[in-house]
Amino acid sequence: MLEYKKEGKRTPIAELGEFGLIEHLTRDIVPVNASTLRGVGDDAAVLDPGQRQVLVSSDMLVEGVHFDLSYTPLKHLGYKSVIVNLSDIYAMCGVPEQVVVSVAVSNRFPVEALEELYQGMKLAGSLYSVDIVGGDTTSSTSGLVISITVVGYVQKGRAVCRNGAKEGDLVVVTGDLGGAYMGLQVLRREKKTWEANPAWQPDLEPYQYVVQRQLRPEARRDIPPLLEALGVRPTAMIDISDGLSSEMLHICHQSGVGVRLYEDKIPKDPQTLTTADEFGLDASTVALSGGEDYELLFTMPLADYDKIKGNPNLTPVGHITAPGSPCRLVLREGSEIDLKAQGWNSFQKEAQE
Amino acid sequence: MLEYKKEGKRTPIAELGEFGLIEHLTRDIVPVNASTLRGVGDDAAVLDPGQRQVLVSSDMLVEGVHFDLSYTPLKHLGYKSVIVNLSDIYAMCGVPEQVVVSVAVSNRFPVEALEELYQGMKLAGSLYSVDIVGGDTTSSTSGLVISITVVGYVQKGRAVCRNGAKEGDLVVVTGDLGGAYMGLQVLRREKKTWEANPAWQPDLEPYQYVVQRQLRPEARRDIPPLLEALGVRPTAMIDISDGLSSEMLHICHQSGVGVRLYEDKIPKDPQTLTTADEFGLDASTVALSGGEDYELLFTMPLADYDKIKGNPNLTPVGHITAPGSPCRLVLREGSEIDLKAQGWNSFQKEAQE
Repeated sequence: MLEYKKEGKRTPIAELGEFGLIEHLTRDIVPVNASTLRGVGDDAAVLDPGQRQVLVSSDMLVEGVHFDLSYTPLKHLGYKSVIVNLSDIYAMCGVPEQVVVSVAVSNRFPVEALEELYQGMKLAGSLYSVDIVGGDTTSSTSGLVISITVVGYVQKGRAVCRNGAKEGDLVVVTGDLGGAYMGLQVLRREKKTWEANPAWQPDLEPYQYVVQRQLRPEARRDIPPLLEALGVRPTAMIDISDGLSSEMLHICHQSGVGVRLYEDKIPKDPQTLTTADEFGLDASTVALSGGEDYELLFTMPLADYDKIKGNPNLTPVGHITAPGSPCRLVLREGSEIDLKAQGWNSFQKEAQE
Repeated sequence: MLEYKKEGKRTPIAELGEFGLIEHLTRDIVPVNASTLRGVGDDAAVLDPGQRQVLVSSDMLVEGVHFDLSYTPLKHLGYKSVIVNLSDIYAMCGVPEQVVVSVAVSNRFPVEALEELYQGMKLAGSLYSVDIVGGDTTSSTSGLVISITVVGYVQKGRAVCRNGAKEGDLVVVTGDLGGAYMGLQVLRREKKTWEANPAWQPDLEPYQYVVQRQLRPEARRDIPPLLEALGVRPTAMIDISDGLSSEMLHICHQSGVGVRLYEDKIPKDPQTLTTADEFGLDASTVALSGGEDYELLFTMPLADYDKIKGNPNLTPVGHITAPGSPCRLVLREGSEIDLKAQGWNSFQKEAQE
């Protein structure tokens, strides 16, 4: 398993100091977006939205709650911490162009560890054409905390919110679900084996897809332009960070409608199915409640169904029902149950229930 | 000293869950700015900048590093966490209109504690006409971490950056310096006394001003319009969060110039002087290195000196020298020394030197 390299260069953070550190980590950042007028290094970044509206969202990742450094490479963590933020902007049908990064870190991390974290952030920035325009590092008394704010843009009046779902709308998910959760189960099992026998090396080859879904997810930047090209305008959209059930309930709650989801329609990768089987878990439950897949869930007029029919990226999984009606899951054998938010909830694990 | 109330209602966070909690904390928030199209409750906030440019900045406050809950009321902490962010926008000559809040908190805090924290944030929002447009709460394995991002606006081309100081410019500070640091010393001393004798109640009356500077600072929203009214356009500006020395060095470094600051010109409140004296500290050193005053430091053309002369809010403390020349402090008795960044540095306390 991983541990931050004991060999090689380990520069204490104090050697650079807070200002030296952020300069060191950010000096090779070159903005690529015309909207970035001034990036890292001032009291605030200066951005020019042109004629567009601005989207802003933040996500915080806390060591021991959202990630475990014993199996999470820092570069992947940096990458993922940017991706989970970009995902929120795509879920509004916007384009992310800037991120502002805050990192709290204890002195047990050398400068080189932060360099790896930033490498992952810069890689995500570079692959998604997003500028890092603000960076702040501070010390922490215990673990690592990463807080990222993303700024995105959308044509005036074109942001897709959670509150526009209408009775009769089709409910659609992108990609497949449950993989990230099964990847987490695999990593946790390998960690336990390794704790019992530190000489042991994990073989993650058979779990490559699900582990990658967990450690190095991608955001669906392709979906807003795809929908545009297909002539489909979502009525509501959200990204799936907490599991299909809880995201669906957010849309229904904010739109004031009900839903009927079909268990047998929920898209899952074959490796998610075999891994769930191996762990004795129900793959549908995993897909409904697992979270962290960063796929998109949206509603759209039923009349446009032909435009998405057969598209491998887009799977209809249900339909919106009348205002005030319940949110239901139709099971494989035909019976119906209430849809419950069992999404990953960072407080739940400490709950008394 | 403070401890989160042992009596009264203590609702476990798990009882509300993550989504219930943020809804509970943010449901009474009503946006006041026309630029806030959609606030809390979606993947991202939707903002309309109109014809203006956008300013974005983040600050993270970590328990045990930036604040000590034994003497910091949660409401004050919430207030201050917003203020330190707004200050960054005023330092660009902009107007803050939105904040996005992320809070990581362990289960040792009941819901009521977070309500107090949010009360302080909402109060700052209300007094400064700033909307809270995004809120995220997550659990933490140890302390409380608050990360806030502020969005501000400025007329195109009117942002004042750190890199515009010119040779001959006047260096000006607002208000007075060193108070927040002396307030911190008083609070730390009272804490020690209280630890030795828990029955003892501190009398903070004689230190009211400096303690307030530490616990409940204000941001200088009045300065950008004041300068506008006086017809003064700063060439560079920064807010004083880390002490006058280190902020001055940021401006000089980014503008590629030197400076000569005069020790005897640095403005200090009488209570800062008497408290420093009581603690055996040099008040000038405190003002130069103390930090957390959230005053503004700016440079301006010497030709405009008459416009600010005698203004009690604005004190000239030195002048900018030629590109490449050193940054110097002229001491009271006339000798000169190099200006050093001894600003409060969250990593320094752990440094080996």
